[in-house]
Amino acid sequence: MVQLTALSDDEIFAGHQGGKLAVTSTVPLADLRDLSIAYTPGVARVSEAIAADRSLADAYTWTSHVVAVVTDGSAVLGLGDIGPRAALPVMEGKAILFKQFGGVDAVPICLDTKDPDEIVAAVTALAPTFGGINLEDISAPRCFEIERRLDAAVDIPVFHDDQHGTAIVVLAALRNAAKVLERKLGDLRVVVVGAGAAGVAVTRMLIAGGVDGGVAMVCDSQGIIHGGRPELAGTKAELAELTNVEVRTGDVADALRGADVLIGVSGGSIPEAAVAQMAPNGIIFALANPTPEVDPAVAARYAAVLATGRSDYPNQINNVLAFPGVFKGALAARATRITEGMKVAAARAIAEVVADSLRPDAIVPNPFDARTAEAVAEAVAEAARAEGVRRPVGSGRGRPEDR
Amino acid sequence: MVQLTALSDDEIFAGHQGGKLAVTSTVPLADLRDLSIAYTPGVARVSEAIAADRSLADAYTWTSHVVAVVTDGSAVLGLGDIGPRAALPVMEGKAILFKQFGGVDAVPICLDTKDPDEIVAAVTALAPTFGGINLEDISAPRCFEIERRLDAAVDIPVFHDDQHGTAIVVLAALRNAAKVLERKLGDLRVVVVGAGAAGVAVTRMLIAGGVDGGVAMVCDSQGIIHGGRPELAGTKAELAELTNVEVRTGDVADALRGADVLIGVSGGSIPEAAVAQMAPNGIIFALANPTPEVDPAVAARYAAVLATGRSDYPNQINNVLAFPGVFKGALAARATRITEGMKVAAARAIAEVVADSLRPDAIVPNPFDARTAEAVAEAVAEAARAEGVRRPVGSGRGRPEDR
Repeated sequence: MVQLTALSDDEIFAGHQGGKLAVTSTVPLADLRDLSIAYTPGVARVSEAIAADRSLADAYTWTSHVVAVVTDGSAVLGLGDIGPRAALPVMEGKAILFKQFGGVDAVPICLDTKDPDEIVAAVTALAPTFGGINLEDISAPRCFEIERRLDAAVDIPVFHDDQHGTAIVVLAALRNAAKVLERKLGDLRVVVVGAGAAGVAVTRMLIAGGVDGGVAMVCDSQGIIHGGRPELAGTKAELAELTNVEVRTGDVADALRGADVLIGVSGGSIPEAAVAQMAPNGIIFALANPTPEVDPAVAARYAAVLATGRSDYPNQINNVLAFPGVFKGALAARATRITEGMKVAAARAIAEVVADSLRPDAIVPNPFDARTAEAVAEAVAEAARAEGVRRPVGSGRGRPEDR
Repeated sequence: MVQLTALSDDEIFAGHQGGKLAVTSTVPLADLRDLSIAYTPGVARVSEAIAADRSLADAYTWTSHVVAVVTDGSAVLGLGDIGPRAALPVMEGKAILFKQFGGVDAVPICLDTKDPDEIVAAVTALAPTFGGINLEDISAPRCFEIERRLDAAVDIPVFHDDQHGTAIVVLAALRNAAKVLERKLGDLRVVVVGAGAAGVAVTRMLIAGGVDGGVAMVCDSQGIIHGGRPELAGTKAELAELTNVEVRTGDVADALRGADVLIGVSGGSIPEAAVAQMAPNGIIFALANPTPEVDPAVAARYAAVLATGRSDYPNQINNVLAFPGVFKGALAARATRITEGMKVAAARAIAEVVADSLRPDAIVPNPFDARTAEAVAEAVAEAARAEGVRRPVGSGRGRPEDR
């Protein structure tokens, strides 16, 4: 395990000098003949062909392998609203993860506006340039509206990673945690603490993946979310409909009484007295970074399986297990959207990578396990084909593998 | 000279399969330690530093070496309004020219709107992501308004290459054409045929570079532009003020009577009878592609120096002589704008690369002459420093060479 405290500022800043990305040519440009193919006059033939049949863009531009990593810098890591310029190093980092783990080219796009209308307009305008849109570090609740509107506006996949990447990996981890404990997913009483972007998506994804929403509960800063709370609107109102059919009320400790699973995505702290109320032999995912909602030493006293968001503990719930393969698969299938089915397929694929070697401290793959992105990409592409959410193939000069 | 007719469709389309660009990492990502520097938790230190002092973005993000190549696909090559998807192969080509000739990373941004307000809003929003904005293939007269508004809105250089790249190379070529003919730039009677994006910028640049605007004339489809034409507005009204103080009227043939220089940027055709009216021993730049306004064989009968936009004739007026070095220099100087002075300096630098080996058929450098971009970059950076149009250097942890 890497010792994070061993990183010096000098080492970190040296690693970011001049940024972390380059744009390179994949074709030769050594002489006038190369130039006349890649640029004028040759390129005009390709542009004419795409103008006549826009589906050819997938074959003859980079859109088959490039995504935009779009942020407004409003909810960056644990730093909050630091703005587009300060967010850029994070988006560059995300882009190199896309390339390293998924073979997907990625371009940071840091927007100097937090207005949802302006963000939707800008991203809709630039969509023809890319094969997919990865939304990143946009604060809730704006992120829900922005993703929904963009998903309707463009014909390429839109995926808010803070929501769905996290949710996919949590579902994968919970599947394997249940398996290692010889429990059924549908029998577990699940409590999600935190109703921001990740909490909402995790709850939806777990239910789509087999968790019993009726007994599940979600807590926000006001306590358990239930249909009787008068002020609920938007996604929280939806959560009240999806979960807690018994309309239980109270605080986090009340929710945890008898619960099998605690999933912390709040960034806050959950007291030991509350955790102690859980049913024995349970599961705790305390995902806040860098400080988990439950101290791992405390959690170990009450739970049989523990996961965090940190790389220096076992079972790191790391989005990098999901997003590179999700986009790799979506691009390969020329998907127009990323559906719930594609996300559940991704979670199943992640879980199955380590299904034969499960241990309580090894329920998810190592981030550097190259099998993960491959497996996720195949599962996502297959689900996209099965659901038929695909752009048409060029009727003219498509690449052979696209036909 | 390359024989363009020798390019087959198969060869051209094969050269564009999968597009022509990749995004690559410039840092290692082999293990958890690398990951913890390039991404979380290390990157948070860099983001915090930029949030506290945004001038550090130039040191620790890719903005010091990356530009966006922005189009709406409305005036692409000779193809016209083919839309953003069909424009993408051209913008990818432009991006590889930026890298090959200037060492500048470039990202295509093809916008799915032709509304100037929406274009300005989208590009203003994404400006923090880049170190410069190269506008490309946006039709006149919208291109003038869009460039002017963006130049006022963002603190990075905005440069419409179809205007200024062409204008810089034309000024460079005309300087050398005058020199080879032992004429003074200020003594030449210049006629510009075409008052679109290139015609307007060429006229302004030539006057900024020493051509006598009072005797110069510009022709559009209605003939000579003069202050007495009642319908003139916008840039054409400006041209009427800048040129033709004698308020001469008539058609292209009337303008060319006794002229020393014909610069064709119209895309149309100029009859031999009109060209025959020029003063002897003159200069013809017929820049329309692929069919010059004056057939080179015809032009050779009436002019001593001939240039075209084509690579298969001598003296190709090719924007690639300008834009890579212009942005390389502007980025190196952290310029906030690209001023008239910087453009004139770029033209002078291009001209001087071949000043010692001038011949009537060699007034501009070969596109593959590596000295050009270097010389242009140095001249542009020096002019930016002299004019003081620069962003401040980071007060904190700047890179040593920035201090």
